[in-house]
Amino acid sequence: MRISGLSKRTGVSVATLKFYLREGLLPAGQPTAANQAEYGDEHVHRVSLIRVLRDVAGLDLRTIHRVIDAIGDERVGRHELLGVVQGTLPRPPIAPDPDGEVTRARADVDAFLARLGWEVRLEAPARGTLAGALAALRRIGREVPAEAFSPYADAADRMARWEVLAVPASGSRSAQVEGLVVGTLVYGVVFDALRRLAHEHHSRCARAEDKP
Amino acid sequence: MRISGLSKRTGVSVATLKFYLREGLLPAGQPTAANQAEYGDEHVHRVSLIRVLRDVAGLDLRTIHRVIDAIGDERVGRHELLGVVQGTLPRPPIAPDPDGEVTRARADVDAFLARLGWEVRLEAPARGTLAGALAALRRIGREVPAEAFSPYADAADRMARWEVLAVPASGSRSAQVEGLVVGTLVYGVVFDALRRLAHEHHSRCARAEDKP
Repeated sequence: MRISGLSKRTGVSVATLKFYLREGLLPAGQPTAANQAEYGDEHVHRVSLIRVLRDVAGLDLRTIHRVIDAIGDERVGRHELLGVVQGTLPRPPIAPDPDGEVTRARADVDAFLARLGWEVRLEAPARGTLAGALAALRRIGREVPAEAFSPYADAADRMARWEVLAVPASGSRSAQVEGLVVGTLVYGVVFDALRRLAHEHHSRCARAEDKP
Repeated sequence: MRISGLSKRTGVSVATLKFYLREGLLPAGQPTAANQAEYGDEHVHRVSLIRVLRDVAGLDLRTIHRVIDAIGDERVGRHELLGVVQGTLPRPPIAPDPDGEVTRARADVDAFLARLGWEVRLEAPARGTLAGALAALRRIGREVPAEAFSPYADAADRMARWEVLAVPASGSRSAQVEGLVVGTLVYGVVFDALRRLAHEHHSRCARAEDKP
């Protein structure tokens, strides 16, 4: 199909498709004439993948580039890919730490993860995310220990165990790693949305019980 | 303290503080002289709150404004506030739906939530988030039913039940609602980070077991 057909199939404007092509996010089509190229199902798939990462996971274009490159790079193993996915976490900008709260929180988070017995790299970006969150809670006056994260760690542990088992060991490498990336990012958003709906449901129940 | 003292206490530059003042995110200080004002602990607290919402929860300034206004508005009840918090969810831009996947996914999500028996508003933004995620999965070739969300719904249900119970019923209204908002947003980020660390941990274990 021509680029206009690709636009029709995906619902993405021709201008945006041309931008993806220029940015190298979308591989070039098969040239058919000067300024014309033919696109196939793999292009439809790639555009859909870009839209998942952008519209559902909320990643910026630079991060999408990094993720797509890692999916396509045969040298990146399944385990290493998890590091790339972790790198897509929103990370607090490196801010001054006038009161030393971030440094203190980081030490607490590292000790907490060690007590859990989790084998995770010291440079795992998620450690910084947790330290930033803990420091932020303390700065608004919630003097919580890292142990406040325990119920969340238990839930995360259970979820991750069956998620890792659910990744099919068969199929092409790129299908597997794409499944891993999309699964982590999209089901993260799905869980967050379900948690907020469950808040609404349980808060309604709690309110109903308050009434005489 | 002067604005320079507020800057030192919070680690936020004077230029940024002035921007927050102009935007109405930070209430004005007590005027002491022309172009001078005195700031107190409540200003330190507000700046920390803005930074949590920005750096940890990753909200944009318009959304932060909406959240802070809701916290301060005595007419907004605890339950209504959950709607405001839901409104901070990343939402897929209203995109064309050339293949009707979003419409189909929305119907599936609504039916799924009805089967769960959750009492949530039809206009709850999280329904749209779930429909967008389901449509996105299907567009990249994962023909999943909404039931694929079941294990996530179970986990979200358990978590939300104890989270709603954990909000203290005592204390000032603004402390309560602030706790609710910050808890939903920050612990959402905390859970997501822990889930990714748990992936790393379990993927390492799975790999170790593969070896002879």
